[in-house]
Amino acid sequence: MSAPIIAIDAMGGDYGPHCIVPACISFLAEHPSLQLVLVGQAPLLEDLIARSSIPALDRQRLHIHHASEVVAMDDRPSQALRGKPDSSMRIALELVRDGKAQACVSAGNTGALMALSRYLLKTLPGIDRPAMVTAVPTQTGSCHLLDLGANVDCSAEHLYQFAIMGAVAAEALGKVRPRVALLNVGTEDIKGNQQVKLAANLLQAASGVNFIGYIEGDGLYRGLADVVVCDGFVGNILLKSSEGLAAMISARLEALFASSLPARAVGLVAMPLLRRLRTELTPAQHNGASFLGLQGIVVKSHGSAGEEGFRSALRRAMIEVRENLPQRLHGRLEHLL
Amino acid sequence: MSAPIIAIDAMGGDYGPHCIVPACISFLAEHPSLQLVLVGQAPLLEDLIARSSIPALDRQRLHIHHASEVVAMDDRPSQALRGKPDSSMRIALELVRDGKAQACVSAGNTGALMALSRYLLKTLPGIDRPAMVTAVPTQTGSCHLLDLGANVDCSAEHLYQFAIMGAVAAEALGKVRPRVALLNVGTEDIKGNQQVKLAANLLQAASGVNFIGYIEGDGLYRGLADVVVCDGFVGNILLKSSEGLAAMISARLEALFASSLPARAVGLVAMPLLRRLRTELTPAQHNGASFLGLQGIVVKSHGSAGEEGFRSALRRAMIEVRENLPQRLHGRLEHLL
Repeated sequence: MSAPIIAIDAMGGDYGPHCIVPACISFLAEHPSLQLVLVGQAPLLEDLIARSSIPALDRQRLHIHHASEVVAMDDRPSQALRGKPDSSMRIALELVRDGKAQACVSAGNTGALMALSRYLLKTLPGIDRPAMVTAVPTQTGSCHLLDLGANVDCSAEHLYQFAIMGAVAAEALGKVRPRVALLNVGTEDIKGNQQVKLAANLLQAASGVNFIGYIEGDGLYRGLADVVVCDGFVGNILLKSSEGLAAMISARLEALFASSLPARAVGLVAMPLLRRLRTELTPAQHNGASFLGLQGIVVKSHGSAGEEGFRSALRRAMIEVRENLPQRLHGRLEHLL
Repeated sequence: MSAPIIAIDAMGGDYGPHCIVPACISFLAEHPSLQLVLVGQAPLLEDLIARSSIPALDRQRLHIHHASEVVAMDDRPSQALRGKPDSSMRIALELVRDGKAQACVSAGNTGALMALSRYLLKTLPGIDRPAMVTAVPTQTGSCHLLDLGANVDCSAEHLYQFAIMGAVAAEALGKVRPRVALLNVGTEDIKGNQQVKLAANLLQAASGVNFIGYIEGDGLYRGLADVVVCDGFVGNILLKSSEGLAAMISARLEALFASSLPARAVGLVAMPLLRRLRTELTPAQHNGASFLGLQGIVVKSHGSAGEEGFRSALRRAMIEVRENLPQRLHGRLEHLL
């Protein structure tokens, strides 16, 4: 395979190119065969690169593709789709569609990125809707949680498709015979809503999927499954409430460690450890989430991700390119659906 | 008002009477005018009391009401309803129905307790389904989250009723003009599923409810609302995943503090603080959840609650008795629905 090329929506996210350009430059230094295409307002991007200390050889692997428009964080998907034909997000996806890049990474508006991805790249045969997945830390390692908000209403068939896609993605990322579970309010057969019960029936009947049944919210963090499947409403609430809880615990611990002189001494030692933990516990912010079920690779970096977060999203995109994830998914789906 | 009487399902929960009887005895010592009725297998309860060091005067306020059957933690609601006419859970609820007690507290099977409560006590006029609510800690205090799993499928009208009930309960528990929010995957108008959007319309039109709009999972923990409303599927997943995450963070911190000699010294000071935090962060286990919308007071203690957790549930029941919560709810609902 030739050197991979990743298209970057350089204008997206809360910090835009001021964060994304340095993240890309340091990422290139770590990956000597990679090529990156920064899509966005060329003069600004040129300027940011000129002011960096990028080595001349790396500079040859960092391309700029001009796009005159930017999808705002509060644009509706329809605005991004119909009103901004020359947005950095759209052009980056078009590079993937046209085979000029193998993946797209964006920190921009999630809804717009999903709508544009579906429109430009199309879903794989057998997949009605792409899903968003990320790795969540657990007591024993991590688990892949999907969907994270792309689909607020899901039928049993959608949940079933998410389970298949999550299993294949987990395998591609190194899990052997990943344990797949449906998120539910109990582990007994009678628990749950109609969609979840029907999805369980579908998964029980599917061969080649290691379906272990229902899992509850605490079971996820106890590491009882490698792939946890739910609709996008539930997944989004779970992920964001976990972020909020982790932030609250951090804040309380900081307050605790500032409350007395001996506690302050403890805090000096403990705080760096706690900060590391907090970073781990904001998985979407830290790891990026990938869109599964498209005929192409799209990774969403968290809107508020810093340079390290954006690099994690680039790393995820590289792994998916290396593993040729859409092709693997396609092969498995032909078998199963 | 005469001295309150609380009926206790003494056989429920993971630890049963061995935990519940001592919890009740110490609770009586703290509340000199309270009377408790332990419902369950009389010989066992007599024996446990005899082996305790309960003062003679307190003993006069601790009654025993025999019930020959026990609802198992894995009984289906229908089994509890039709197959066990003399269960401790049912008899405790009948005492409330018949005016012989003002509240019922149980650590038993949640689904069975809900089914029996609805059947025996009936819902308030205008309420289709009771909801389960508990206080969740936030960065600024706490918020009342409902529903927690009693209703996995909810219409907009149900969510609306939950919001009203949550607001009245929060007021009764001391919040002035509680801020009521609907849990959603975004705060913009276009976000969410159909039920949530319609419920928002209903709440915007309701007078006397301080509806502040949508809230996301992280906003809940940031303390942006006093009452957070969702369906029981989402609420259950949120609560249990939060419990799981808090447990995971505790475990990681313990491991962190055991990892080196200086860290161990830190841990000696930090661990008691962390344990306190963990207790706070398992709200259902710690606080008990109450059923709202019934013609009577029912508080569910967590199945795995220890003595302190069970006392918290008793405390909640006492407050609801003092505030005459079902009556307050009834008055407000007559106005609003």
